[in-house]
Amino acid sequence: MKRLLLNADMGESFGPWVMGMDHEVMPHVDLANVACGFHASDPDVIRMTVRLAKRHGVTVGAHPAYPDMVGFGRRSMACSAEEVENLVLYQVGALAGVCRAEGLEVGYVKPHGALYNDMMRDPEILEAVMRALVAFDVHLPLMVMATRDTAPAQAMAEQHGVTLWFEAFADRAYDGEGRLVSRRELGAVHHDPDVILDQAQRIARGLPLTASDGSDLVLVADTLCVHGDNAESIAAIKAIRDALNGLASAS
Amino acid sequence: MKRLLLNADMGESFGPWVMGMDHEVMPHVDLANVACGFHASDPDVIRMTVRLAKRHGVTVGAHPAYPDMVGFGRRSMACSAEEVENLVLYQVGALAGVCRAEGLEVGYVKPHGALYNDMMRDPEILEAVMRALVAFDVHLPLMVMATRDTAPAQAMAEQHGVTLWFEAFADRAYDGEGRLVSRRELGAVHHDPDVILDQAQRIARGLPLTASDGSDLVLVADTLCVHGDNAESIAAIKAIRDALNGLASAS
Amino acid sequence: MKRLLLNADMGESFGPWVMGMDHEVMPHVDLANVACGFHASDPDVIRMTVRLAKRHGVTVGAHPAYPDMVGFGRRSMACSAEEVENLVLYQVGALAGVCRAEGLEVGYVKPHGALYNDMMRDPEILEAVMRALVAFDVHLPLMVMATRDTAPAQAMAEQHGVTLWFEAFADRAYDGEGRLVSRRELGAVHHDPDVILDQAQRIARGLPLTASDGSDLVLVADTLCVHGDNAESIAAIKAIRDALNGLASAS
Amino acid sequence: MKRLLLNADMGESFGPWVMGMDHEVMPHVDLANVACGFHASDPDVIRMTVRLAKRHGVTVGAHPAYPDMVGFGRRSMACSAEEVENLVLYQVGALAGVCRAEGLEVGYVKPHGALYNDMMRDPEILEAVMRALVAFDVHLPLMVMATRDTAPAQAMAEQHGVTLWFEAFADRAYDGEGRLVSRRELGAVHHDPDVILDQAQRIARGLPLTASDGSDLVLVADTLCVHGDNAESIAAIKAIRDALNGLASAS
Repeated sequence: MKRLLLNADMGESFGPWVMGMDHEVMPHVDLANVACGFHASDPDVIRMTVRLAKRHGVTVGAHPAYPDMVGFGRRSMACSAEEVENLVLYQVGALAGVCRAEGLEVGYVKPHGALYNDMMRDPEILEAVMRALVAFDVHLPLMVMATRDTAPAQAMAEQHGVTLWFEAFADRAYDGEGRLVSRRELGAVHHDPDVILDQAQRIARGLPLTASDGSDLVLVADTLCVHGDNAESIAAIKAIRDALNGLASAS
Repeated sequence: MKRLLLNADMGESFGPWVMGMDHEVMPHVDLANVACGFHASDPDVIRMTVRLAKRHGVTVGAHPAYPDMVGFGRRSMACSAEEVENLVLYQVGALAGVCRAEGLEVGYVKPHGALYNDMMRDPEILEAVMRALVAFDVHLPLMVMATRDTAPAQAMAEQHGVTLWFEAFADRAYDGEGRLVSRRELGAVHHDPDVILDQAQRIARGLPLTASDGSDLVLVADTLCVHGDNAESIAAIKAIRDALNGLASAS
Repeated sequence: MKRLLLNADMGESFGPWVMGMDHEVMPHVDLANVACGFHASDPDVIRMTVRLAKRHGVTVGAHPAYPDMVGFGRRSMACSAEEVENLVLYQVGALAGVCRAEGLEVGYVKPHGALYNDMMRDPEILEAVMRALVAFDVHLPLMVMATRDTAPAQAMAEQHGVTLWFEAFADRAYDGEGRLVSRRELGAVHHDPDVILDQAQRIARGLPLTASDGSDLVLVADTLCVHGDNAESIAAIKAIRDALNGLASAS
Repeated sequence: MKRLLLNADMGESFGPWVMGMDHEVMPHVDLANVACGFHASDPDVIRMTVRLAKRHGVTVGAHPAYPDMVGFGRRSMACSAEEVENLVLYQVGALAGVCRAEGLEVGYVKPHGALYNDMMRDPEILEAVMRALVAFDVHLPLMVMATRDTAPAQAMAEQHGVTLWFEAFADRAYDGEGRLVSRRELGAVHHDPDVILDQAQRIARGLPLTASDGSDLVLVADTLCVHGDNAESIAAIKAIRDALNGLASAS
């Protein structure tokens, strides 16, 4: 069984404003999605975050976003495909520059927030992101969402020579298509630690989840997205980490 | 005699706003100082500018600045040395990312505007810029101003293993220290094409200029900074280019 | 016959970047839509533009936009209704502050670019803009697009006690609904000065235009939007101005 | 004895980033210095902060700053006097617009961070701020620092017809000139609640403090600046509030 990696958003502080508990989260994850200065972070925050990742042997990924600091990159913007390609390229490059200063390399790319959502629903945006990756380094994997039918994204990735990493969520409900249930709907987010842990283990083992329409949903995932903003969520990350380690050593 | 290279600021457009005549200037220069998105430029403008430079075989240099778009990086900001190091690193990286997409590399770094001036008068800022370069790529030359006494900057550069490129100006008056006469003073800027051309040739030949205090001033320069915003200044660039080519072929 | 006022976007320069020919346009228009610092303009540009408007007796209107300088406010952003209300309020207030310093008041509000388009197609956005107006000053007219059926916008405006000013375009083709034909379609923009002048006069006289589907389209408009970026467009503004003055004195 | 008012910086959150404990501080202060969107805050944060101030009957003051979000307005910027005048005007206007929506008015102006410091040491900056106030509303008081010799600022204020409000600090050491001891020096900031409370009471009563050079220092102050970022500082504010109330009822 392939090991399911844990990824978390990091480096989301900005200037004097602190966000997240990066020091508590970093020891427990494999992949750090580092904000690149368009929706969060700044050159000083990026430097500190890259150093922190290095100290814990965590792979640094670029987390590029629409240019919308006040909206934290969560608001869809009608950018052209060319604009998306170039803003991804710029942000990956900026992070790569800081990584290079610390003797590291960017290990993958995961678009953030609205850009991630837009990429998942609009093939033109997905292709623009892929073009940026290919132009920068064709060996850089792109993290996308694991859904029921990943064939279209796979086909596009193969055409461009891009490797996809599929991510799943342990604390979110899925619909029948394998997409996240909107946060506006009841039951979209799991809060019960046991439910979250169970979902994480099912995904790691390739066992089906129950989608919101009652159907079985098997998500083939390379990585699990976790969040650490408070003591409770840090505890959840540790529990998932321990459970995955247990599965790995048992296999 | 070493060939005196021509450098010009490029990629200073921003979003819908156009600045400079990059298409007219690019064919006549050796080095393009490309704005990196903090005082001018954006990912799309950078991409276009890098492509233009590539088409003309011009070396792309990073032109990092203080984060001050509305002030065009011309206003000194009380950034700490660490902030300067990181903002230079971020900007060089971002430009390097776009260069990589076009199969190019960043060839040198020239700080812009107030950051350039601050670096020339404050060794702490100069050293912060050097640290960024060393961290990113120790082989990347740093462009600084040719003055009467370049020994202190040379000493610091040697200590860090950084190569300096000295630049001079054909259209500006110099004071006795070999610093630019402030634009607020009469005669600070040369407008007569013959005077500009003569100063360019003197610098290329290692002949003395007459400083504002009447003293002889020999500037040892690797490159000459030129500007192209209108038909007249484009003509001046061409005249300097022809004159330098003439000197080169004569030597 | 009511006099058709001319409005033009003004104050679209930003920091060192100049846009538009405000000095040439201002003498010929009645209403200046002044950018408020979110898609263009800055405090210095706003001050100069307000002074220029004052000198020519032109009414200053607020031209608020999405916060997107690099995209010039032309990219739709998924802002919430509350965000739209507050960003309009902030921008109107900022402009009002500068107007107050010059002894003027903001005379109306015309949303810019993507915010304008979104407001015309989404009643929730339109209502958010109206709430900002009512909160700031219920007597401030809101400029919206004259279309075939203005009843829904009128009904909402009456409910909020807001006055609407309808604007039409002399240089754009209309579809059967009285909406602008997309710029991506052939014939969307008129370039022939005679066609533009004829359309302006028809609108002023309440005569029908021919929509892109061949139907007659009567637009009931209070104001005509004109643009001045080059000598040709300035000439077009003057021609329209003269024609409207002729109509006014003849009536 | 005149009542010493308490002022605190408010509305310093930005987009998704929270700063300060405005809900805990607001009930205990008289004056809220509200960030205006250049160093902190955004239209939504401003709206919420103004509403909070209204609910508690607290006077809203404008807290304009240099345009430096990432540096939180703490880095001096070499802005011209004209730029300072216009950026203050813009920010006061923006806040006034939101206040107007809530049926309030801006009650005073207190420049923030580096702009405040620059204004205190450079008469040209102070005068630029005053010009902005006079242009917006000559009745708007300007908050400046109470120092040993306030005559020069008073003279300039009288010349412009501006009212000054002097503020003092209970938790900071003063030098012989009545200026704050730099935070880089030992003993610059008081941490002992008793020392802070004693200094607050001395200032309220017009009793001398002991400056860092050992001299007696009487500060004539209208208001005391307090900060609330954690439970301890909130407790300090309440203690000062109670002590001042006691003094007021005793007088």
